[in-house]
Amino acid sequence: MSEKRHEIDELGEFGLINRITKNFTLTNSTSLTGIGDDAAVIAAGNDNLLVSTDMLIEGIHFDLSYVPLQHLGYKAIAVNVSDIAAMNGKAEQVTVSLALSNRFSLEAVETLYNGIKAACENYKVDLIGGDTTSSVSGLVISVTVIGRAPAEKIAYRSGAKANDIICVTGDLGAAFLGLQVLEREKQVFLADPNMQPNIEKYNYLVGRQLKPEARTDIVFDLEDAKVIPTSMIDVSDGLASELLHLSNHSGVGVRIYEDKVPVDHQAYETAIEFNLDPVTCALNGGEDYELLFTIRKEDQEKINKHPDIHMIGYMHDRKSENVMITKQNNFVPLKAQGWNHFKEN
Amino acid sequence: MSEKRHEIDELGEFGLINRITKNFTLTNSTSLTGIGDDAAVIAAGNDNLLVSTDMLIEGIHFDLSYVPLQHLGYKAIAVNVSDIAAMNGKAEQVTVSLALSNRFSLEAVETLYNGIKAACENYKVDLIGGDTTSSVSGLVISVTVIGRAPAEKIAYRSGAKANDIICVTGDLGAAFLGLQVLEREKQVFLADPNMQPNIEKYNYLVGRQLKPEARTDIVFDLEDAKVIPTSMIDVSDGLASELLHLSNHSGVGVRIYEDKVPVDHQAYETAIEFNLDPVTCALNGGEDYELLFTIRKEDQEKINKHPDIHMIGYMHDRKSENVMITKQNNFVPLKAQGWNHFKEN
Repeated sequence: MSEKRHEIDELGEFGLINRITKNFTLTNSTSLTGIGDDAAVIAAGNDNLLVSTDMLIEGIHFDLSYVPLQHLGYKAIAVNVSDIAAMNGKAEQVTVSLALSNRFSLEAVETLYNGIKAACENYKVDLIGGDTTSSVSGLVISVTVIGRAPAEKIAYRSGAKANDIICVTGDLGAAFLGLQVLEREKQVFLADPNMQPNIEKYNYLVGRQLKPEARTDIVFDLEDAKVIPTSMIDVSDGLASELLHLSNHSGVGVRIYEDKVPVDHQAYETAIEFNLDPVTCALNGGEDYELLFTIRKEDQEKINKHPDIHMIGYMHDRKSENVMITKQNNFVPLKAQGWNHFKEN
Repeated sequence: MSEKRHEIDELGEFGLINRITKNFTLTNSTSLTGIGDDAAVIAAGNDNLLVSTDMLIEGIHFDLSYVPLQHLGYKAIAVNVSDIAAMNGKAEQVTVSLALSNRFSLEAVETLYNGIKAACENYKVDLIGGDTTSSVSGLVISVTVIGRAPAEKIAYRSGAKANDIICVTGDLGAAFLGLQVLEREKQVFLADPNMQPNIEKYNYLVGRQLKPEARTDIVFDLEDAKVIPTSMIDVSDGLASELLHLSNHSGVGVRIYEDKVPVDHQAYETAIEFNLDPVTCALNGGEDYELLFTIRKEDQEKINKHPDIHMIGYMHDRKSENVMITKQNNFVPLKAQGWNHFKEN
């Protein structure tokens, strides 16, 4: 019998997770939802608790040659808080585990924690635990966040129905373009260390990449407007990938309009400068940490004056037809080309 | 002004944690206990939730040249479940995040998860989430465990009073000696790859190192006996280090008797073979994952027939006097010489 070795990147991250977790079942009555959404759900009295975790690895998720440690600490918390917001919940606690090589001084660790602390204060979450150890090489940050929501307010990926309106917050593609700018400046610097980085005109994009914010404000605004999203996810891998998640979990199809996809003007101009299509950056760029959600048609008027919520399309009942309708009225199939940390290597 | 760089290993792990976390405060009413015990405590209806997290790094915490991946997966869960047991609680959920270099095949990852699954089934915990990513080098496993206990049953490190009886489960030092055996056999193998490892006579010690068990049985036994420990901790860094934690948190002193410290006979003989003092291995070895706890004197008779609970000493009111009374009736100060993952490098 041959024992062929199979490479992980044949499957990709989602394939690997599916393969591994299909043998696991939930047995405790308090485990309400396991793997497969932005956060797991645990019974806890009147509310449910939401649990999510993310690991950031130096050389894979961040490059310390242009990511300041303080921003990295902030981002590590923000992206986890975003996963709780994506369930329509409120983050309350985090644990932070660090592995550090001896390249890092005490001062460097304190700078990292200054960012963690700034994010904890901004999002009103408490640091309640963690683990700190040395590493053979580089920095690893693993964060687990715990949030809370009444059961009836939790928004899963699976609740969208045909005719629901698709909404997205903020603007998309800027974080990806910020990364392109930073990578280009790094190459310029490596070629000639006397060159000063020229990123001022890209300040919005670079800020979106280095210090993204979780849209916890939207969770409060939806509560005030008495709107519970029928489905919800945060935009970490790119709009197209997240739309396909909602389609897949909810069993309905997606139609969005190209001219409704929100792209900031700095992102638009920079995309052109890089010979990239701005909407493609929005669809596939990732790391925007905006919220993508669906609402019932009758809730539309409750939030259609919100300055930062954009209605970009609607759900329909043919679940395999996930398309973007272009400005020329062509139907373009949506494809997930988001970030795959296994395929990047 | 000089800006001196300070090295992390000047502080050690506990010093670093203290330094970093002293600026963080708990602000949410649901955050009952933060950093400083085996697990954090969160309000959740009638019960409290317990949260703990651990990160295992290849080359620091394990050596894949002699640690089978299946055992590693099992151990990653067991050591986290042990932290919940150390609060007198019951673990219910875990998240598992993995970073993997492309050295690992899909089959290797599945073997690791077979061990994780075996532990989840044995301890009746549900895998509810995680993150999977690539790494630049080696394997990183980060586990967060969530457990549960009624508020009045949670045992903190801080509750011991003078005259409380000090109890420890199982036997100590075997995991440390198992590691010595494995390291020796590795050196033999590196010197002559045709040599077969000779570990059969050390099977108990090697098993304690490679596949430790969390003492969840003791939590149930204490419940049956209607005993709530006044303080509790698990033995991960060595008995001496853990006793000093209880002394420090509770503000009382420790007296233990050398002849009461439980050491398995295989551990005893192997310590002698390695020219090590068996009781020193028990005091400083670490990774036993037994439970160390204190009980009120009046509870003593409720558990003194338990075959696996050993009463090794008592607390007294001079908190700076932490001693072991030797067989020759000498008083030896207890010192924490447990594992320090920063000082090992």
